[in-house]
Amino acid sequence: MANKNKGIALAIALAMVLMGVLAVIFIQPLEAAEGGLVASDALLEEAFKFVKSVGVWFMLMLVAFLMLFIKKFEWGVCLAVLLSAASSFITYMAIQEFYFGEEWTSQMMVQASIAAITYVIAIGVFLGTVKQWHYFIGGIAFAVVYAAVEWIVCNFELFGTLTTDPGGSIMVHMCAAYFGLGVCLVLRVKDAFNEPMYTSTHSVSFVWLASMLLWVLWPNFVCGSLGMEDFALGAATCYMAGLGSIVSAYVVCMVCQKKVNPLTYTYAMLAGPVAIGAPLLSVNPWGALAIGIVAGAISAACFIYLQPWLCNKLGVLDVMGVHNLHGMAGWTGAFACAIVLMISGNVDGGLANIVMAVMIFALSLVGGAITGLIIKLAMGKPMEMFSDDYDFIKNEEPQN
Amino acid sequence: MANKNKGIALAIALAMVLMGVLAVIFIQPLEAAEGGLVASDALLEEAFKFVKSVGVWFMLMLVAFLMLFIKKFEWGVCLAVLLSAASSFITYMAIQEFYFGEEWTSQMMVQASIAAITYVIAIGVFLGTVKQWHYFIGGIAFAVVYAAVEWIVCNFELFGTLTTDPGGSIMVHMCAAYFGLGVCLVLRVKDAFNEPMYTSTHSVSFVWLASMLLWVLWPNFVCGSLGMEDFALGAATCYMAGLGSIVSAYVVCMVCQKKVNPLTYTYAMLAGPVAIGAPLLSVNPWGALAIGIVAGAISAACFIYLQPWLCNKLGVLDVMGVHNLHGMAGWTGAFACAIVLMISGNVDGGLANIVMAVMIFALSLVGGAITGLIIKLAMGKPMEMFSDDYDFIKNEEPQN
Amino acid sequence: MANKNKGIALAIALAMVLMGVLAVIFIQPLEAAEGGLVASDALLEEAFKFVKSVGVWFMLMLVAFLMLFIKKFEWGVCLAVLLSAASSFITYMAIQEFYFGEEWTSQMMVQASIAAITYVIAIGVFLGTVKQWHYFIGGIAFAVVYAAVEWIVCNFELFGTLTTDPGGSIMVHMCAAYFGLGVCLVLRVKDAFNEPMYTSTHSVSFVWLASMLLWVLWPNFVCGSLGMEDFALGAATCYMAGLGSIVSAYVVCMVCQKKVNPLTYTYAMLAGPVAIGAPLLSVNPWGALAIGIVAGAISAACFIYLQPWLCNKLGVLDVMGVHNLHGMAGWTGAFACAIVLMISGNVDGGLANIVMAVMIFALSLVGGAITGLIIKLAMGKPMEMFSDDYDFIKNEEPQN
Repeated sequence: MANKNKGIALAIALAMVLMGVLAVIFIQPLEAAEGGLVASDALLEEAFKFVKSVGVWFMLMLVAFLMLFIKKFEWGVCLAVLLSAASSFITYMAIQEFYFGEEWTSQMMVQASIAAITYVIAIGVFLGTVKQWHYFIGGIAFAVVYAAVEWIVCNFELFGTLTTDPGGSIMVHMCAAYFGLGVCLVLRVKDAFNEPMYTSTHSVSFVWLASMLLWVLWPNFVCGSLGMEDFALGAATCYMAGLGSIVSAYVVCMVCQKKVNPLTYTYAMLAGPVAIGAPLLSVNPWGALAIGIVAGAISAACFIYLQPWLCNKLGVLDVMGVHNLHGMAGWTGAFACAIVLMISGNVDGGLANIVMAVMIFALSLVGGAITGLIIKLAMGKPMEMFSDDYDFIKNEEPQN
Repeated sequence: MANKNKGIALAIALAMVLMGVLAVIFIQPLEAAEGGLVASDALLEEAFKFVKSVGVWFMLMLVAFLMLFIKKFEWGVCLAVLLSAASSFITYMAIQEFYFGEEWTSQMMVQASIAAITYVIAIGVFLGTVKQWHYFIGGIAFAVVYAAVEWIVCNFELFGTLTTDPGGSIMVHMCAAYFGLGVCLVLRVKDAFNEPMYTSTHSVSFVWLASMLLWVLWPNFVCGSLGMEDFALGAATCYMAGLGSIVSAYVVCMVCQKKVNPLTYTYAMLAGPVAIGAPLLSVNPWGALAIGIVAGAISAACFIYLQPWLCNKLGVLDVMGVHNLHGMAGWTGAFACAIVLMISGNVDGGLANIVMAVMIFALSLVGGAITGLIIKLAMGKPMEMFSDDYDFIKNEEPQN
Repeated sequence: MANKNKGIALAIALAMVLMGVLAVIFIQPLEAAEGGLVASDALLEEAFKFVKSVGVWFMLMLVAFLMLFIKKFEWGVCLAVLLSAASSFITYMAIQEFYFGEEWTSQMMVQASIAAITYVIAIGVFLGTVKQWHYFIGGIAFAVVYAAVEWIVCNFELFGTLTTDPGGSIMVHMCAAYFGLGVCLVLRVKDAFNEPMYTSTHSVSFVWLASMLLWVLWPNFVCGSLGMEDFALGAATCYMAGLGSIVSAYVVCMVCQKKVNPLTYTYAMLAGPVAIGAPLLSVNPWGALAIGIVAGAISAACFIYLQPWLCNKLGVLDVMGVHNLHGMAGWTGAFACAIVLMISGNVDGGLANIVMAVMIFALSLVGGAITGLIIKLAMGKPMEMFSDDYDFIKNEEPQN
């Protein structure tokens, strides 16, 4: 069956080998001769960032398993996540090195892995409605949008102050949700509504595993760019916010639906860590607990009440409920931080956070829409969706 | 179906939002203004504790998957673990901050996560026999008991010496096993014996995954309170003890039953790391290997011979076999440490360890019994058990 | 059913207890009295190695799940991995302590865990064709071979220079592949060809999980022996190589077979990290990307075209395709590194790498063959294969 393509395959493999060898020959030794990328100072700081960067990558892969609940569409999710991570990470680093002139320090590795996980979150909105290579192309466009978002959040002063968002409620989660929604609104895949998304005991158990481990690793993510002096507080507020949403998401599920929908709970229990991103260092752990309780309740309520309404109004399906978790908890974090800043007398800082959140909302939505347009133009004919049969060779035992 | 409760839900959500906002307003900024919780000194020590605290949380979640083998009761285990972790962690930290006056350092985060994992181990004894919110209530009671246990083990001198238990054989594992048994003895859920606990290939594969990763992460746990100078020895003895029980548990399974019961093996292979907690820094790696071999053999033999006898005598079912692993290996560790101390001339230290083990045994059992009484009074009518159908909404493909 | 063996079991358990107690009494306190294994200096360096050693152990366990795709042979893979790790780790450390006079530093723990994972990779070649205790015996023999290989790679000068292999393309991956192949060639289990190896959705999802997390943790492995000043570059090149093979393995799969075979892709996507081991610090990240692209393409093509041909020619089945991943990507890494060294003027270094690769190839193959011979002599009659029914007690729900 594969005979026909052997020639092409070998040619491509050969081309890759040649390309690779050429790249190795002409690019590397020059750089290597300069002594590489090593910062001679602050090795310890670097080493910790190494640990956190591995932690963020770990989370990125777990996001795939958080989205693995449709039994007939599991492997495709994994593949999409890998291709997405590859294109967004590589493009982001190319922008940083060749446009901004950055070096490959551990700090940059953390930032690039955060860029990649942001795109992986974003694809959740339209997952299962485009072909595998579209995720790859989308990642290139996303990296450009994200580099702009990051630059604005970190450098653009509003009312004379910078935005307070050390853990990325605005920069990461709102950007992810509205970029994804932007893509989704342009693609408008109506068939997505009609696809049955059946789960199985173990497909959902994978989601529990992913959600619980994501919750655990979250401090690596929100403390990703922090210096070592802020670790203790950042980890404490992150975990307390997470404990808050573990409890409040359960309460809201039970009160509203008498039983727990595992695909609501496993997502909403992460709303606290999402929301704590902005006020990470502005509250004490008990304040973080309160924010987590609020965020978990809002997110769970959105899964139950907002999602159907939104799908109906917008005419698109947010496949993995990304908006209910990252979008809503992102807003919660931005506003909670603004309130805390204002109360402590920093009114300008509070306003800056809200205005910045609105700006990132708009920018991400537009960036997503343009990316959606690019994908739409590249897609050609419509596709089969939500099925591993489309992409994969299977070898399952014949049923009797 | 959920319409009826919408009003209540929204009211509760609103109340939570208000509560949260109030908490944010009145509590946080005051503390934040003081400069937060940052220790200015010894940042590195803190940073390592951050890594270990994440490791312990990781293990806590894996304990859920270690108990996931009953195919029709998987998600409920995850939910119970999350609610248990939330209430025990929060209560423990409240006790530490408001009673003992501790700050939220990384060290406290490690200790609190160890308190939480201890309760998560304990619920394994009666898992599936109470409702979800009972785990939450039990966690509050447990945190009080554990704070007392911890204070006694760390501060109470016997025969003029402190107890030697750096890795928690006594403080964590015996406390967990006998607290759980205390609860179980009071609840006396007879129906638990009649529930079929069928597994499936993959439900047990999740257990293998959890057990193997728990084994790997164990040094984070036993070295949780150690300074950096003891890391290398602690990790070496922990892993060697673990390798010992990997081998001896297999040998005992094969000799006694000709085949391996995976639910005996995956638990008993962790007996070495449990037992090495007390003698962690008192033996060399080869001694640790010996202790691991002994602990693995004892634990496997207890699963095979002691469990049925104990169930029969006590009239209660230790659902997850917590006593065979944590209880028996805890005793093994306490005695092994006592023997080593005595041989090296520290007879008082050895006696102190044994007396302390007996004290913690009694204290935990009584604490558990009281907690069981509280749960029993709160429970009302009997409940359906061991089934995800009771708590969760499912969306599985209709069978043809 | 187990009654008959109770006596033997108790006797053995007792013997183990006695043995353990004796070991504890006579060996440990003496050593413990000397102050243990603690290095007083460079605690930080040690602490990082502690983190990396945990990371390598984590990967070792994940390798088991990478090989879990045969639905009726899952638990046996886990057990085999555990027994293999135990015997190879313990034997390796015994050799290091009693032959080379090494202490139990964190550095030694990292090296020993790398030795153990190398053997775990190697058993993939003949997995399912021998009994459980043969893996254990094989590990003892392997540790001897590996200690020799490690000594040669690290100390033997060719053309006046040492080999450049900081991340173990040659020392770990080639050694694993050809040792395994050596064992396999001697065992020649023909029945392996006829065993159906059916997968299921979730057995393959476990493989995705393992592969994706292995990819993430890989820097712990290739940077295992590096000082802190090389972390940043090592992690950067490792991840970039990995992203390269994520993309190229997909392209080759699609071009050659129109669909993706998940058991080709999940393995070939790791070829980049395997191949970057040797040139880890000799290229910049873009060069690493190129090497990853080449290695992923070669590995995927080998799964598709070389594997059937090799099975046919050699008359043996490489069960897990170890040679396609570790063997071929190991060669790729060795040659890529040699080319880079030569281009940058270090011709002797380049030649040394190639000659060393050939030497390790031969040494591992012969070492494996001898180990295979030992196993063959110990095996007695032929065995049932590839089935958990052979080793495990099951408790699955009766089918209606």
